[in-house]
Amino acid sequence: MAINSLPDNLSHRYLGATRGSSRVSALALTEEDVCLLDQNALPQEVRYRRIRTVEAMAEAIRAMHVRGAPAIGIAAAYGVVLGARVCAARCDMTLDAMQGQLRQDIRLLSQTRPTAVNLMWALREMEKTLAETSPLSDLPSILLERLTVRALALHQADIDACVRIGEYGAAIVPKGAAILTHCNAGALATGGYGTALGVVRSAFARDPDIHVFADETRPRFQGARLTTWELCEDGIPVTLIADNMAASLMRAGKVDVVIVGADRIAANGDTANKIGTYHLALAAHAHAVPFYVAAPLSTVDLSLSDGEGIPIEERDPEEIAVIHGESICAPGVRFYNPAFDVTPARYIHGIITEKGIARPDFRTSLTDFKTAL
Amino acid sequence: MAINSLPDNLSHRYLGATRGSSRVSALALTEEDVCLLDQNALPQEVRYRRIRTVEAMAEAIRAMHVRGAPAIGIAAAYGVVLGARVCAARCDMTLDAMQGQLRQDIRLLSQTRPTAVNLMWALREMEKTLAETSPLSDLPSILLERLTVRALALHQADIDACVRIGEYGAAIVPKGAAILTHCNAGALATGGYGTALGVVRSAFARDPDIHVFADETRPRFQGARLTTWELCEDGIPVTLIADNMAASLMRAGKVDVVIVGADRIAANGDTANKIGTYHLALAAHAHAVPFYVAAPLSTVDLSLSDGEGIPIEERDPEEIAVIHGESICAPGVRFYNPAFDVTPARYIHGIITEKGIARPDFRTSLTDFKTAL
Repeated sequence: MAINSLPDNLSHRYLGATRGSSRVSALALTEEDVCLLDQNALPQEVRYRRIRTVEAMAEAIRAMHVRGAPAIGIAAAYGVVLGARVCAARCDMTLDAMQGQLRQDIRLLSQTRPTAVNLMWALREMEKTLAETSPLSDLPSILLERLTVRALALHQADIDACVRIGEYGAAIVPKGAAILTHCNAGALATGGYGTALGVVRSAFARDPDIHVFADETRPRFQGARLTTWELCEDGIPVTLIADNMAASLMRAGKVDVVIVGADRIAANGDTANKIGTYHLALAAHAHAVPFYVAAPLSTVDLSLSDGEGIPIEERDPEEIAVIHGESICAPGVRFYNPAFDVTPARYIHGIITEKGIARPDFRTSLTDFKTAL
Repeated sequence: MAINSLPDNLSHRYLGATRGSSRVSALALTEEDVCLLDQNALPQEVRYRRIRTVEAMAEAIRAMHVRGAPAIGIAAAYGVVLGARVCAARCDMTLDAMQGQLRQDIRLLSQTRPTAVNLMWALREMEKTLAETSPLSDLPSILLERLTVRALALHQADIDACVRIGEYGAAIVPKGAAILTHCNAGALATGGYGTALGVVRSAFARDPDIHVFADETRPRFQGARLTTWELCEDGIPVTLIADNMAASLMRAGKVDVVIVGADRIAANGDTANKIGTYHLALAAHAHAVPFYVAAPLSTVDLSLSDGEGIPIEERDPEEIAVIHGESICAPGVRFYNPAFDVTPARYIHGIITEKGIARPDFRTSLTDFKTAL
């Protein structure tokens, strides 16, 4: 049973993954539950949530206790495993009924967040495993085992992809570079190691003189809360700025390269990522600062020709209006709170994937990388 | 005694000015003190600070209980009046000694904040009044009266300038326009009525279909705390966004014009304003959205050929790190917190002043406006 390959350091302050992870990890499957590092409690508190049901996992994704496109894909896959455990524990449930229930679970999980395509991708992978089962020979317990193995493999594959992204990406980081990043595309946003911060980690291992500028990333402060925490834990120097300071930092010549993550990349390279990424790309373009996206190929959605079709989640206005329980604005004001924006491919110098760096025109290279998986 | 021309509604919730003000006012001179609307307490609390000494006024400016380039100019002038009252009340003080003391007071006030030139401008105006005194005929009480009249006149002149800025500016606001603004360049930032928000007020009086998008303006949230409050008080529709959302809002075609205030404008039109203004100007430029600066001519500094020479204040990192008493980031992180940035003149479509709208090349029109004062 694949459970044996679980990290043995769950009692440690961090949930480590088996291979290639940083010290910080967002989630792990245990024999009883899924253990999530509660990202809404960071950095004040390192607190874990024990998720035991599909419904609880759906809620944890929606409330962003786990967030980051690759991480929510893995969380959703683990959610299916939790659903399968419930089914397998019921003596009266046929394999057929279990498959029906799990398809409902998958639907529930798929509706939690619309923009990050890794969620749909991971659930499709789980659905394939569900469909491969032959009713003649298989039992609910065997299906559970297969789904568990599949989910753990997705997790490990994501970590491996991040490590390769880190290696490819480190090559484009100049010696002693100042790297600007937005939101958190780190170990916390992935299975471990990170995408944009995976590149930072690999670059830092080669060159301790690099330095990171972290956009705080309003409205939810993932840059301030998560990126600074994760980098400080790993001893990587990081300077926090408000999002609106990036342009003057670039104008002063203090930024050598921008690297961000992605929630969905269309076939032409248009990239949806955390709100503010597009604004940042415009600033980088105006100052001729190279702008890179780092993401596993599970983030690439070849079904969309360009970024126009990417659904953009709008979230609760309270995310803008209320900080630490207190309002920052007058009653009577209206709000606009899109969680993501789309950066047109023309502003992107390269997309760093686990197969190499896709360059413009992205369509050919992304398709080649993706179909050669 | 000019004290009689003080607003008679000091007991009212708002400190109104005599002519042309909005419902909201930042400060007023009373017979006992200077009454400041505490802008750090807004919007939760409408609280007044009674400022009685030069030292208290210097601290109020430094701590941004009063802020906004024109408003701190007026506050500093009133600070000199407070100093003059102390001198005039002392029977043993000669006119000579009083002048010496007030020059020290002016030096103290001038060192509170480096970027907004209105502060230095207003103090120079007060110094002129100080110098005009003839020791042969004048008494400390007469000097006090002259300084009081001068400070009140500066305040009223600023309100009048804002009203004219509003009138000139309203002409460039399209029918039913969505106006994006940054920080607070409103009644709270001026003697009353506002610069960028003065234009909004004048436009709204003609066309109730206009609508304002307010950048929240990190790190101090002046857009969220002050602009939404001030506009809601006047019934002008306003939508709050995080600073990093402006570019995608423009890309969606939802912004017709950007209007911001200024803290210092160099002779060529380069404009220092609240941090994030430059980033916003880049976004406006990329989307061909007209970008206007609204400011009284007291903000224009012809002694600087371009924006390179404008000193940029760096403020306490805690402004970024701590919100409502709680940290948003990991211990160990570094900070960068410039309070202002400089927008190059080439991104500015027009500078709306009380003498009309300066257009590129700004050097000629700004010099003409300023020297014809």
